Amino acid sequence: MAGVRLTPVLVADPPLLNTQGVHQPYTPRLIVEVETADGITGVGETYGDTKYLELARPLADRLTGHQVSDLNGLFRLADQVAVDRSRISGQVDVGGLRGVQTADKLRLSVVSAFEVACLDALGKALGLPVHALLGGKVRDAVEYSAYLFYKWDGHPAGVAAEKDDWGAALDPAGIVAQARTFTERYGFTSFKLKGGVFPPEEEIAAIRALAEAFPGHPLRLDPNGAWSVPTSVRVARELGDVLEYLEDPALGTSAMAEVARETGVPLATNMCVTTFAEIPEAFTKGAVQVVLSDHHYWGGLRNTQQLAAICRTFGVGVSMHSNTHLGISLAAMTHVASTVPDLHHACDSHYPWQAEDVLTERLVFDGGRVAVPDAPGLGVELDQDRLRFLHRRWLDDDGRLRDRDDAAAMRVVEPEWVTPAVPRW
Amino acid sequence: MAGVRLTPVLVADPPLLNTQGVHQPYTPRLIVEVETADGITGVGETYGDTKYLELARPLADRLTGHQVSDLNGLFRLADQVAVDRSRISGQVDVGGLRGVQTADKLRLSVVSAFEVACLDALGKALGLPVHALLGGKVRDAVEYSAYLFYKWDGHPAGVAAEKDDWGAALDPAGIVAQARTFTERYGFTSFKLKGGVFPPEEEIAAIRALAEAFPGHPLRLDPNGAWSVPTSVRVARELGDVLEYLEDPALGTSAMAEVARETGVPLATNMCVTTFAEIPEAFTKGAVQVVLSDHHYWGGLRNTQQLAAICRTFGVGVSMHSNTHLGISLAAMTHVASTVPDLHHACDSHYPWQAEDVLTERLVFDGGRVAVPDAPGLGVELDQDRLRFLHRRWLDDDGRLRDRDDAAAMRVVEPEWVTPAVPRW
Repeated sequence: MAGVRLTPVLVADPPLLNTQGVHQPYTPRLIVEVETADGITGVGETYGDTKYLELARPLADRLTGHQVSDLNGLFRLADQVAVDRSRISGQVDVGGLRGVQTADKLRLSVVSAFEVACLDALGKALGLPVHALLGGKVRDAVEYSAYLFYKWDGHPAGVAAEKDDWGAALDPAGIVAQARTFTERYGFTSFKLKGGVFPPEEEIAAIRALAEAFPGHPLRLDPNGAWSVPTSVRVARELGDVLEYLEDPALGTSAMAEVARETGVPLATNMCVTTFAEIPEAFTKGAVQVVLSDHHYWGGLRNTQQLAAICRTFGVGVSMHSNTHLGISLAAMTHVASTVPDLHHACDSHYPWQAEDVLTERLVFDGGRVAVPDAPGLGVELDQDRLRFLHRRWLDDDGRLRDRDDAAAMRVVEPEWVTPAVPRW
Repeated sequence: MAGVRLTPVLVADPPLLNTQGVHQPYTPRLIVEVETADGITGVGETYGDTKYLELARPLADRLTGHQVSDLNGLFRLADQVAVDRSRISGQVDVGGLRGVQTADKLRLSVVSAFEVACLDALGKALGLPVHALLGGKVRDAVEYSAYLFYKWDGHPAGVAAEKDDWGAALDPAGIVAQARTFTERYGFTSFKLKGGVFPPEEEIAAIRALAEAFPGHPLRLDPNGAWSVPTSVRVARELGDVLEYLEDPALGTSAMAEVARETGVPLATNMCVTTFAEIPEAFTKGAVQVVLSDHHYWGGLRNTQQLAAICRTFGVGVSMHSNTHLGISLAAMTHVASTVPDLHHACDSHYPWQAEDVLTERLVFDGGRVAVPDAPGLGVELDQDRLRFLHRRWLDDDGRLRDRDDAAAMRVVEPEWVTPAVPRW
């Protein structure tokens, strides 16, 4: 590589509720551009909180002269970057509901953006789409699900924010209305509700309302580990006839395994199993039936393929998790998902919630699917003006939004709010 | 692809002994050449017995128009090829000590040759070595071990055969002399003895003699599942101080797990775990500590990388198995082995036993290592004259050697010989 450019941005985010609080008006992402000696550029993106930026800079410095085809070498270089121990809780990360936080996982989250950028550059250099560099697509389009959130109509008065056109959704009727908008705008046919916000009875009612409004459609509920084992089992039993799966009802492998033993509803996760190290115990105990890969924290697209191979071998399903992200990551997810033979669940994506992007052209959901790009690389193009605009917002921030903190955003409305202890119910 | 050429060959093989009998004078291999629309060719090789040829032909017929970059698509096409049920024992394959025989494994063994040929062609088309298509080498040379065999001086009198210059090795002194020749010719520093030929006491004595002649060097013993659990445990205890690992002492996951529980000597395998389906039980029971991948029956180089990822995740070691093969497969093994980060054991290779090859230039062991080729593709070139010569031998065969049968070869000398029942000791 001849050069690497790192551009942190702040991207508008609607007031989406989860068990820890509410999304802030803007969320940080990091855009990575690598440039080869021949002047070909590749792009990637990952989480943009300070702890990721701290690692991205020294990794970028090590990449001069590195071949974009040497993807395995990225991991070796990343291992040389020291991680500030104070960044590592060793526990579930409070900021982003992203599962356990370890030094390795932090490194992998950063590497993933470089891996995707290298694949993009390599694909452009060779005239091949990224999926061909991953062994070739096995489908021409990847299915996504509608990601339903309880949400306020807008961010609190007096807070600088962009306005969204989704309206409020704070009860079953609001959720059903939101789902209808999703189907009208994007054609999604399966639905995931981010739960853990209201007492379980209210969320059960919302799922029931969805089942009635969209009979036979796959439904999912994800309280982000907010429930006790008994509550999880009770909800699973009550909704067993309509749930495709229940996602992270309780926290930790033991609790998940207990829930799994008591119900026939498959359990999905992006919190219990988020690293290779967590797999043996979870799979041996039967704690999870579907792993939702977030290619950022699994370390990129090839690691996601390896995760898929492990899941296949152990009879565990696989699909894709999504945290707030832009079009670069949606393209990356689409490429890798297109190469996984046994992807039997629609992938998650926050993308419809992100009205802002750094691309010249947004990716399109047609019938709930994104067509797998066949152009060289990822098949996306950076809009440098938009990138500068969103970077300017990051530069102008006084530091309050550079690290995602859903509890802090909630305290604007409820000054006494602290991240709820789990199990919350 | 514009065309595919399949060339079965018979290759000279010395009279190497194993628990089932002795190698025949010639062994079948299949050479696969794929040609792109641009006239670029790629080469691969795999087992050449009739049951593999039967699948290779219809798979080749399906490949016209198939992109060499669409490696995932090869598996889909192979799934369409029907497997003659009579070829599938569902048990350990009597012909080749290759573990369980299933339709899927047979298909994967055939696909592997096409996958390697496609990677070779793709690499040539893109100007990249195969290891770069696999994410990039993490080492510049791959270490191999000396593969010691009990052997006769020559094939039985009156049998058409090539002469080898290794001499006989039928006792500890013969094995040590063979090991010395290996170190002189190739610089190997670790040694594997193919056992299961003589009663365990004699093979223990051979390992002891090696330990004395080569103090501190890694030693391995592989009786191909010929022993009972008590015998395996006894040998492991007696040789525990000098063995790097014991390979397939007993047959089957349960027996291997029993042995593993009773000894601290790691157990390696290319018989107990030879398919993804066998992994969960074996890993959960702790039956094996090192899996030796034969990229042919695991389905190619990318599947071997997936196997390595699974092993890494479960704390199981990984290295490479070898059955009789030529330089194309040695190059393929070297490329994939160079990309596996945690390859902590020297790989096996029969290659020094194969005086004949189909390449213009043989691969070289220097200090026991093969340098990872950086030329485009595999970095090898077919010698069409040699290929024709070895194919002519296959054409001229009356069918006796087209399917490897070590017991039949033994019957030439011992007419009453049948494949011994296991456990043999």
